[in-house]
Amino acid sequence: MSIIVQKYGGTSVGSVERIQAVAERVRGYRDAGHQVLVVVSAMSGETNRLESLGRSIAERPAAREMDVLLSSGEQVTVALLAMALTASGCAAKSYLGDQIRIRTDGNFGRARIRDIDTDRLQADIDAGITPVIAGFQGVDEEGNLTTLGRGGSDTTAVAIAAALGVDECEICTDVDGVYTADPRIVDDARRLDEITFEEMLELASLGSKVLHPRSVEFAGKYRVPLRVLSSFEKGPGTLITTENTAMEQPIVSGIAYARDEAKITMSGVPDIPGIASRILGPVARALIEVDMIVQNTSEEGITDLTFTVIKPDFYKSMKLLSDVAEEIGAEKVLGDENIAKVSIIGVGMKTHAGVAQKMFQTLADENVNILMISTSEIKVSCVIEEKYTELAVRVLHEAFNLEQKETEA
Amino acid sequence: MSIIVQKYGGTSVGSVERIQAVAERVRGYRDAGHQVLVVVSAMSGETNRLESLGRSIAERPAAREMDVLLSSGEQVTVALLAMALTASGCAAKSYLGDQIRIRTDGNFGRARIRDIDTDRLQADIDAGITPVIAGFQGVDEEGNLTTLGRGGSDTTAVAIAAALGVDECEICTDVDGVYTADPRIVDDARRLDEITFEEMLELASLGSKVLHPRSVEFAGKYRVPLRVLSSFEKGPGTLITTENTAMEQPIVSGIAYARDEAKITMSGVPDIPGIASRILGPVARALIEVDMIVQNTSEEGITDLTFTVIKPDFYKSMKLLSDVAEEIGAEKVLGDENIAKVSIIGVGMKTHAGVAQKMFQTLADENVNILMISTSEIKVSCVIEEKYTELAVRVLHEAFNLEQKETEA
Repeated sequence: MSIIVQKYGGTSVGSVERIQAVAERVRGYRDAGHQVLVVVSAMSGETNRLESLGRSIAERPAAREMDVLLSSGEQVTVALLAMALTASGCAAKSYLGDQIRIRTDGNFGRARIRDIDTDRLQADIDAGITPVIAGFQGVDEEGNLTTLGRGGSDTTAVAIAAALGVDECEICTDVDGVYTADPRIVDDARRLDEITFEEMLELASLGSKVLHPRSVEFAGKYRVPLRVLSSFEKGPGTLITTENTAMEQPIVSGIAYARDEAKITMSGVPDIPGIASRILGPVARALIEVDMIVQNTSEEGITDLTFTVIKPDFYKSMKLLSDVAEEIGAEKVLGDENIAKVSIIGVGMKTHAGVAQKMFQTLADENVNILMISTSEIKVSCVIEEKYTELAVRVLHEAFNLEQKETEA
Repeated sequence: MSIIVQKYGGTSVGSVERIQAVAERVRGYRDAGHQVLVVVSAMSGETNRLESLGRSIAERPAAREMDVLLSSGEQVTVALLAMALTASGCAAKSYLGDQIRIRTDGNFGRARIRDIDTDRLQADIDAGITPVIAGFQGVDEEGNLTTLGRGGSDTTAVAIAAALGVDECEICTDVDGVYTADPRIVDDARRLDEITFEEMLELASLGSKVLHPRSVEFAGKYRVPLRVLSSFEKGPGTLITTENTAMEQPIVSGIAYARDEAKITMSGVPDIPGIASRILGPVARALIEVDMIVQNTSEEGITDLTFTVIKPDFYKSMKLLSDVAEEIGAEKVLGDENIAKVSIIGVGMKTHAGVAQKMFQTLADENVNILMISTSEIKVSCVIEEKYTELAVRVLHEAFNLEQKETEA
C-alpha cells in the first residue's frame, strides 16, 4: 500500500459526469489497496465567472473579499466529489483550506503557504477515509481566507504531499504527460517518461501549460515525487525526478513556446550609468513583471533597451515608458505585440557546446528573424515574429531529433 | 447613534445591481450616524441550483457535504456586498459562519445555533467597520460546516442581534411589511404598523411567507425588536413588538392562508385506546410532520381520524397509512390534495367571544364548506376546498373590517 496525493484540475471536475468519473478513478486506487488524498480545483470556468462577477461590482474589488469570493469555487467541488465518493461506497470527507489550517501569509490573491496541520488528514488516512481537499485556498494568521493565485491547486497538492511525506503526488489533467513539444503543433511530439525538475521548471516558465512553475519549484525544494498524467486515460504519464536515471542525457528535452508577451524598445537612450534602472523603475513600481531584458552595446554614447512584459500589461507599460522617454531625452518608444518566445530546454546542454548556435542556424535556415535572445544553463529562448511560432517549434523539434526515443538520442 | 442588524434575503441580493443598491442603502444608514451589521442570504435561486447539483451527483447526498455545498452560496454574496460597500467608501468586512464562530449543534441541514462569538463584530463596530455576515451557516464543535435550514438567514440575523443586544433587527425583504392579508388577493389589505410576536408567529406558521416562524420564536424569546420592511422602498414597515402599545386590541389582526398541505382521513377505525398513536406512529417515525389532527366523536365503537401533512410528504404518508389500515382493520384511507387552510389571527380574540362563530358564518354565507377546524387562543384555522381560497380570504378580511385603521376597529 502506498499513500498518494492526486490533484484534479478544473477540466477534470468540469461537470457532474466528470466528477463521478474522478470518484470512480479514486475508488479504483482505493480498491487496489492505496490510500489517496484528493485535491481539487473549481469546476472549469467557475473561477473566471466569479472573478468577473467581482469585477462587475467594483472596478478594483477589495482583495480580501475577492479571495472570499473565489474560494467558494473549490468549496463546491470538494462537496460534490466527497458526495460522489460516499455514494459509491468510499468513505470521504471534504476539507476547506481553513479546516486543515493551510496557513498562508496575508497576501490576498497570491498568498504563500507557510504550514499545514496534518493531524486531521493523518487521522482520516488511519481510519480509511479519503480526504477531499479544496486547492488554491488557505487562511492567514488572522483567520482571513486567502487564495494562492493561478496554479494554486497544484501548489496545495505538492504542499500536502510534502507535509505528509507521501509516496507520490500525481497531477491529473487533460493531457497524458509532458511532451517534447506541443502535440497540437508537432505531429511526432513524444511523451517523456521522465524529466528533471530543472527542465520542468524551465518548460513551465517558458509557456508549457501542464504545470505551474511554482508547484514545480515547491516539489523540487521538498523532493516530492511528482507525476503528470491523464485524469481520463490510463498511462504512466511523466515522472518529474530529482535525478535523471538515464545513463546519458539527451542534449535537448523539449521545445516550449509562449505567445502571451509583448516587447517594448526604447531607442536613442543616453548611455549613462543607472539608465536601465531609470527606465525600468516606474514599470517595477507599477508591479508589472518584466521577463527578458536586452541592452545593446553602446555606440557613441547612445543605446537601445528592449524588454518584454505580458500582454495585459502592455498598454500600461507603453504609457509609463513614454513619460520616462520624455524625462531622460530618449529618441522613441516602440512596442510590438506580435511576438512569440520559442525556447529549447535540456540539462544536457550544460555540457554540450554549440546548442544555441544550432538553434540560431535552424531558425535562420527558415528565414525566421531572431528579435531577442536570452539564455540560461539549461535553456535558450529566442523572441521571433509571432507568425513563425508553429514553424519554429516544428523545425527545432526535428533539428534536435526529439521524435526519437531518448536512448537513441 | 443606534446599532442595527439588517438582513437582506435572496431577492434583495439577486443581481449585481441589487447588491449595489443594498450597499447604497446600508451606506445611507451609516451616513445618518447608525452602525449597521448586515446579514445576507445567497443570491435568489442559488441555493436551489446548488441543491439540485448535489442531487444530480447522488440520490441521497451525504448531509455533511450538502452543507459544505450550500454554504458556498452565502459566501459569494458576503464577498460581493463587502466589495460594493468598500468601493462606495464604506469600510466593510465579510464573515463566514465559522469566522465569527456561529457555533451550532451537528444536525446537518437543520442545525440550531448554540452561541456566537461577538468579539470580532464588536471590534469592527468600535472601529467603524460594517460587518457583512453570511446567514444560514455555522460550524459545529468538530469544525464541520453546518446550515440552519430554510429561513436560516433570518435566524442568523436575530441571533446576532440578540448576542450583541442591538437596538433593532430589520428583516429587509421584497414586501414593505406585514399585511392584514395577502395583498395579491385582497385589494384593500392594509400594512400593519405593529404586530405582537404571538400573532406574527401564528401568521408565519399559517402560511405568511414574510418571516420564518423559527426566527420569530427566537426574537420573541430574546426580546429582540424585529422589524419587517422593504429592501427597495422607503417606509417604516411593521414592528413586531413584545407588548402592544395600542390602547385597545383589534379583535383580529390578519388573515393567513396556506395551500401547501394535503389531508388524509382514515375512516372506520376501531375506537380503542391508543389508536391515534398506532395510526400516527409510523408517520412520526418517518420524520413526517403532521399539522392539524381531528378525531371525530366515536359512534358505536367506530371513529374517523383526519390529519394534514405538507404536500411533498403526501404520497409517502398515504402508503404508510394503507399499511396501518390493514393492520388495525380500518375501513379505508382517503387522501385529498386540493385543500387550503385559511386562518384568522389576533391576540384580541382571547377576550372576545364569538370570533370563531363569525368566521364559520362568513364562510357559510358564501357556501364554503369547512372540512376541518383547529383553534388556539389567538387563531382559528379552517381547512376548505382549495378553489375557495381567495374568496375565503377576501370575505373574512371584510367581515373583520381589516381594511380600516386599527384605531377605528
